[in-house]
Amino acid sequence: MQNGSKSSRNCVVLLSGGLDSATTLAIARSRGLACCCLSFDYGQRHRYELEAAGRVARELGAVEHRVVRVDLSADAGFGHSALTDAIDVPKDRDDDGRIPVTYVPARNTIFLSIALAFAEAVEAFDIFIGVNAIDYSGYPDCRPEFIEAFERLANLATAAAAEGRGAFKIHAPLIHMNKAQIIRTGLDLGVDYSWTHSCYDPGPGGLACGRCDSCRLRLAGFAAAGAKDPAAYRKQEP
Amino acid sequence: MQNGSKSSRNCVVLLSGGLDSATTLAIARSRGLACCCLSFDYGQRHRYELEAAGRVARELGAVEHRVVRVDLSADAGFGHSALTDAIDVPKDRDDDGRIPVTYVPARNTIFLSIALAFAEAVEAFDIFIGVNAIDYSGYPDCRPEFIEAFERLANLATAAAAEGRGAFKIHAPLIHMNKAQIIRTGLDLGVDYSWTHSCYDPGPGGLACGRCDSCRLRLAGFAAAGAKDPAAYRKQEP
Repeated sequence: MQNGSKSSRNCVVLLSGGLDSATTLAIARSRGLACCCLSFDYGQRHRYELEAAGRVARELGAVEHRVVRVDLSADAGFGHSALTDAIDVPKDRDDDGRIPVTYVPARNTIFLSIALAFAEAVEAFDIFIGVNAIDYSGYPDCRPEFIEAFERLANLATAAAAEGRGAFKIHAPLIHMNKAQIIRTGLDLGVDYSWTHSCYDPGPGGLACGRCDSCRLRLAGFAAAGAKDPAAYRKQEP
Repeated sequence: MQNGSKSSRNCVVLLSGGLDSATTLAIARSRGLACCCLSFDYGQRHRYELEAAGRVARELGAVEHRVVRVDLSADAGFGHSALTDAIDVPKDRDDDGRIPVTYVPARNTIFLSIALAFAEAVEAFDIFIGVNAIDYSGYPDCRPEFIEAFERLANLATAAAAEGRGAFKIHAPLIHMNKAQIIRTGLDLGVDYSWTHSCYDPGPGGLACGRCDSCRLRLAGFAAAGAKDPAAYRKQEP
């Protein structure tokens, strides 16, 4: 296994292929870390996100990029989300304070757990995740208290921590940023957001719908940042 | 998806196919719960454990048994354990207080995380795991403080908890039992331990080695319980 360059410390970065995780990888790289990236093929309904993750890892100089398959689809007994089941992705949704149907049960807990195993394998103690609790969809596993609870768990769960080789730190550098701040941070660090994919319900060729929560947060973020979103959107019906 | 009988509450039981998880399933069943069992095909070096899990689920009346594949082998970038990598399983090991090489990085964290997603899918709030902190190999993710930290995390991570539909409880009914107590509990509940497989390094046909940590804890437990271990062992070389 490739363990990063000899001169810099390894870290693990969760990379979905979206705007937030690309920015998170750029931040980890800017700190001089050798980034071992993990993406998940979890039964999501399209592949554009994983293709984007590959581009982002390559362009931002990850030392390693692994795609882990863990099937959270309805066929596998999971489902219960518009991203993994036969449930329509909501469009033009008003934020009513409820958790939307795009929530995937325990997704970030699963992703962080597997990232923790990967961190033990590559001898990393720093795990980066691009969650954000400002311009987000209200998912419980994006909140600071969730991240803190996972960090506490990580330091009880592992041989690396129990044997005193180090302490795990879960880095969520975007957690208190709004979308415009995230985009400006990424642009400053050289992220080209045309590499990324955000839409929950893309059309043929990966064209973004412009109307799901993820597209709307992205578009509003670019507008607030005074930057042009390089993503390709479907023509809207009049 | 089958969601258990209409009259009883669902729970999720992690089922490895070993002695401890079989006893745990019997305990959950004795409490009148409809048991949705999860086993993991995680790149372990043999299949006997998963075959045993199928037998145990069937014999003890689980309402559902799913095998989730998540590859933690060295080829997938994980490994670093005698159970998932080209590392010899230690034999006749004296307990030196160290975590042995059979530790699988973050295994119980990953298994519980996926069990949490499954619990949301089957609308269960009770998750059973057969960890035990007395006659065990010293794995950090078998300790009571780990289980408590995971329970805390589960109640921050999920829509089911955030929306007030219930509170997750991680049940580890064996955690303070010694192996003989576990075996006596299982026998009283009708477990036939010939269904189970414990050996880390089985020979052809699944014959147990009798010398790995898992076999030695099992054999000592049966001896202390005054019961006969129905498992088939390899003939020991003189």
